[in-house]
Amino acid sequence: MKFGLFGGAVARRGEETADSQGYGGFIDTVVEAEQLGFESIFIVEHHFSGGGQLSSSLNLLSYLAAITSTIRLGTAVTVLPWHNPVLIAEQAATVDLLSGGRLDFGVGKGYRDIEFDGFCIPKEESLARYEESIEVIIKSWTSNERFDHNGKFWSFKDIIVEPPTIQKPHPPLWTAAGTDESIARVAETGMSVMLDHFASFERTEERLTAWRSACDGIGRNFDPMEVALARGVTITLTNDGLEKATAIREERVSRMFDKFGALPGLEKKSDQPDSYANPDLAIDDAALLGTPDMIIERIQTLKDMGFEHILFLLPDSVETLRIISKEIMPAFKS
Amino acid sequence: MKFGLFGGAVARRGEETADSQGYGGFIDTVVEAEQLGFESIFIVEHHFSGGGQLSSSLNLLSYLAAITSTIRLGTAVTVLPWHNPVLIAEQAATVDLLSGGRLDFGVGKGYRDIEFDGFCIPKEESLARYEESIEVIIKSWTSNERFDHNGKFWSFKDIIVEPPTIQKPHPPLWTAAGTDESIARVAETGMSVMLDHFASFERTEERLTAWRSACDGIGRNFDPMEVALARGVTITLTNDGLEKATAIREERVSRMFDKFGALPGLEKKSDQPDSYANPDLAIDDAALLGTPDMIIERIQTLKDMGFEHILFLLPDSVETLRIISKEIMPAFKS
Repeated sequence: MKFGLFGGAVARRGEETADSQGYGGFIDTVVEAEQLGFESIFIVEHHFSGGGQLSSSLNLLSYLAAITSTIRLGTAVTVLPWHNPVLIAEQAATVDLLSGGRLDFGVGKGYRDIEFDGFCIPKEESLARYEESIEVIIKSWTSNERFDHNGKFWSFKDIIVEPPTIQKPHPPLWTAAGTDESIARVAETGMSVMLDHFASFERTEERLTAWRSACDGIGRNFDPMEVALARGVTITLTNDGLEKATAIREERVSRMFDKFGALPGLEKKSDQPDSYANPDLAIDDAALLGTPDMIIERIQTLKDMGFEHILFLLPDSVETLRIISKEIMPAFKS
Repeated sequence: MKFGLFGGAVARRGEETADSQGYGGFIDTVVEAEQLGFESIFIVEHHFSGGGQLSSSLNLLSYLAAITSTIRLGTAVTVLPWHNPVLIAEQAATVDLLSGGRLDFGVGKGYRDIEFDGFCIPKEESLARYEESIEVIIKSWTSNERFDHNGKFWSFKDIIVEPPTIQKPHPPLWTAAGTDESIARVAETGMSVMLDHFASFERTEERLTAWRSACDGIGRNFDPMEVALARGVTITLTNDGLEKATAIREERVSRMFDKFGALPGLEKKSDQPDSYANPDLAIDDAALLGTPDMIIERIQTLKDMGFEHILFLLPDSVETLRIISKEIMPAFKS
């Protein structure tokens, strides 16, 4: 199995310091995570949240490229409707070049109203903008000849895009998907898929089934490494601790959903108020909470479903990563 | 006096290697330059040239932020009409944060036809786009409250832009200017100014005069550190070497002007074919070519004009930087 990380640095307005490490704790954690054997760090990108969320993921990955050597550097995700597709292709290629070919480029079409409103981009254009951008980005990375693009949202004339990527034909593309329909659509594009950490094990298994059957339907080989499953993790050694961790997770997830709405594929269905699709009910059943042995058992359940690529949500304490490395990962070494 | 550097990394299509250092030679040079006492590195940003020119300057600066500790990190310049002003404000703030407040943000309105055509942006919109972007960028950096922007080219609604910059109220803004009119306009904005390395000493002195009188006219204090003068430099120890260096410089400058047109303020004037404004004639008289003693004399001339902030065009060999550090800089230590 492959274990990576998923998260983001935080720097709030009003809390800035004069030292050089506004994102310092996060950066130190990634450097140690590489040494502990984690194989990737996927970082978020959000705008206008007011909570200090990372907004320039490719800049932070450029910094990490300089101080790491093996860990894969991913975005989860770069929301394409916000970006000029040629500029983002150049920036991503630069990260790939600077990191010696370690970029995993995660892309999405966006879901937060606060971002669509902030950028003054109609939400109903998101899919069309996303699809046009993907086309331009791949062309930008792969074309050694000048080309034109005349699209609905963007036009470029007689361009050649530099620098070249190290990975050929281009860095792996990942995208987050939540509904069965969008999961099937990702399978058709040839990209890899990321599944969120909010969905219950039950819903997560359904999503894997959707991916497998979409692959079967189009003759795509099922490669478990192309399905990255995000999971929250909290290690607790007592019952008290477990209750507290559950409460904390519940509070955080509820706050996220209240503020930004549910993720696609997890909307509350009014006709099934108690279904897995209700995120309030899925909280306990989604995360990896408990003792190392309990977590090993939970991961084994995921492995039995067919998952072999887990991205742990970056925990509050680096000590959790040390325990995962020492006590959990060895159980899944082949 | 203050000495910095100006240049860019190159990575051409078809020359990529599997090693992690596509921009490696450039990166190594900057690290050594910091140790040699150079106080800044300003890097270019260009698109679609086909020659491997750096396109994502803020990503490369993010990488450099990780492996340097004192050298100022500048763009020269980020052409604002290509960029979403909020995204570029976020990216620049991220570099400022990652570098502990070492960003010098150089901005421009663009001059290359190949870039305006490539991005399908009419050249006649460049100044209006530039001015609108500056307004949005400064607001993004400095506003601790959510704001709206309804401009001619961009609209944003109810946004707050993160991360915060380290430098307050915001990173220094620089802009390149070439004509007397645009130099005066920069003085009025409160930004610092960069003067190109193509203009002859004579034209360069005129530009400084234009800056000084603009400052006088609006009651702005003249600070020589706010006027960065770029200069090509080649150290030669023989007459033969000097002739060769002159020929190389002549060939490069002519090729640049042929391909992209003359820079503003250096256009050939048809009624004055032999004036300083003819770049073909200004070549010998613009660069710093010769022995260390000859170059010290040339820099002294610039100092006597009032220049105290020189950016050397990054030379082909790092050995040149070592000689500058050892034999030229000490002559100007106060």
